[in-house]
Amino acid sequence: MANINEFDLIEEYFAGQVASYGVNLGIGDDCALVTVPPGHQLAMSMDSLIGGVHFPKNADPELIAERAVRVTVSDLAAMGADPLWMTLGLTMPTSESHWLAGFSRGLFRAAEEFNLCLVGGDTTRGPLAITLQVHGSVEPGKAMLRSDARVGDIIFVTGNVGDGAAALAVIKKQLDVGKSAFGYMMQAYYSPKVRVREGKIINAVASAAIDVSDGLMADLKHICKASGVGAVVEAERLPISEPVRKLTDPDVALAWALTGGDDYQLCFTVPPQKIARLEELQAKHKLDITAIGEIVRGPDCVCLSDGRIVECDVSGYKHF
Amino acid sequence: MANINEFDLIEEYFAGQVASYGVNLGIGDDCALVTVPPGHQLAMSMDSLIGGVHFPKNADPELIAERAVRVTVSDLAAMGADPLWMTLGLTMPTSESHWLAGFSRGLFRAAEEFNLCLVGGDTTRGPLAITLQVHGSVEPGKAMLRSDARVGDIIFVTGNVGDGAAALAVIKKQLDVGKSAFGYMMQAYYSPKVRVREGKIINAVASAAIDVSDGLMADLKHICKASGVGAVVEAERLPISEPVRKLTDPDVALAWALTGGDDYQLCFTVPPQKIARLEELQAKHKLDITAIGEIVRGPDCVCLSDGRIVECDVSGYKHF
Repeated sequence: MANINEFDLIEEYFAGQVASYGVNLGIGDDCALVTVPPGHQLAMSMDSLIGGVHFPKNADPELIAERAVRVTVSDLAAMGADPLWMTLGLTMPTSESHWLAGFSRGLFRAAEEFNLCLVGGDTTRGPLAITLQVHGSVEPGKAMLRSDARVGDIIFVTGNVGDGAAALAVIKKQLDVGKSAFGYMMQAYYSPKVRVREGKIINAVASAAIDVSDGLMADLKHICKASGVGAVVEAERLPISEPVRKLTDPDVALAWALTGGDDYQLCFTVPPQKIARLEELQAKHKLDITAIGEIVRGPDCVCLSDGRIVECDVSGYKHF
Repeated sequence: MANINEFDLIEEYFAGQVASYGVNLGIGDDCALVTVPPGHQLAMSMDSLIGGVHFPKNADPELIAERAVRVTVSDLAAMGADPLWMTLGLTMPTSESHWLAGFSRGLFRAAEEFNLCLVGGDTTRGPLAITLQVHGSVEPGKAMLRSDARVGDIIFVTGNVGDGAAALAVIKKQLDVGKSAFGYMMQAYYSPKVRVREGKIINAVASAAIDVSDGLMADLKHICKASGVGAVVEAERLPISEPVRKLTDPDVALAWALTGGDDYQLCFTVPPQKIARLEELQAKHKLDITAIGEIVRGPDCVCLSDGRIVECDVSGYKHF
């Protein structure tokens, strides 16, 4: 395939726009210009996905792009923020039309789901890497922080935990899996449900929240550390999906759920006096959430099974 | 050197803060939370610098970090925006304390010069690469765009052009250079003057602006294309520094000035009726600016020397 220059590349593959609030000037000048909704704070988060580290270099570019958008938007979901804009730093060894067409398709499909407008970025030559920054708005003082969990709060998680780790095991071909389960796992890995909707709803009652990217216990520990508390999770209450249960034995499934990461569910805490309100919201919005434990005096953050502590590495994904 | 994990790394090397407006929540949660000055637009720009492509992999990390901040901030300068915050995507093969200490020193030194607060980012393992996003504020409708140059406008440039290309030639050891000139060149490359102050001042009179990163003629052509005009630059008026004149013969110096790039000066256009006001501003603020040509009917964008067109490649830096 012919290589094309940066300007043509941007024009051809990244000028597609998703309508979103407040874009005054998009791609094509020295800066993008945007307007934050009046009276709101801007929430922003950056994620880098490196070829050969966070995804196989030969992975389908459409899937990589979709995953990149989703995992980055997940940080907005964890704050209860409303997605608005994104910027893309794309580094590639060569600019290959077929690859770029796929990448652009996946990027804009995911962007559209969250009404994210691509307003700028940089394309460079080098080892394959994707850096995305997402921007969203939130009412002042209303973002869900990691630091506001209190002793007695109930710990919840959205959806299932363990799907991300199971999917990774399948992708790495450590496990045989049937056709329908394979589809489920591929979707869990490349197109994880991102809980933007849920984040905005639970924001009314949650004291603290985080998205499960490093692993449930590691991420819960981030909440505990920031809030100066501890946590007890009950193994028997963990929502583990049917495909994961079928795929492996209960011990491995539990380990995946507790330490696997890549789930992009929200883990959040709710004060006891707000549980009734949460249940109303759950019924009204059909929220898929599960109570899995309780915030206790710190600093320990443990999982109990039949009253005994489950040994697990809670240090999470090692970046180095 | 011992490797350290991501959380300790951030705490140790990147928690240093530069005071800037509107930081509600910095590093350490799922998102940063910031407040844009009321009634202002947010300007943002992302730049990636790849090890082995944009800088030598074994270059001094302090210098790389300083350069990364400066070249990225240059995009804010070109819009006339006020720098506020930055985010950092840092990818490294290993987390080496000595390297990180130097990188952090250079990063915060440059950040302090522009009152840029590091509010978030991502650190990952992989081939050396730096992605920076900078954010600044500008009054609505006041940003200098590329698209507002008009026939008859006078073209100006800040400082000197050609220093960036000369410095690169010195770094690549294509040229012998004396000790004092070497220092000048190193500074031009790793610590280019960034025209934030000038950008804010000329914003009162300029019709269009861009920063010279791809090369003067290539960047001027971006203005011409966006504005639907042409341009004539006079070779004899180009501000070329004494060290560059001494380093090489006039033809090479002219080529560097016209096509070299990496200067990070501002190239801007001013309507004839605002030239008197610009001269007042120049005197008052001791602006280092030079008139180099005029906007004409499009689409040609040329440099004349003694009335003849100087042949030069105006397509600029090839990213692929």
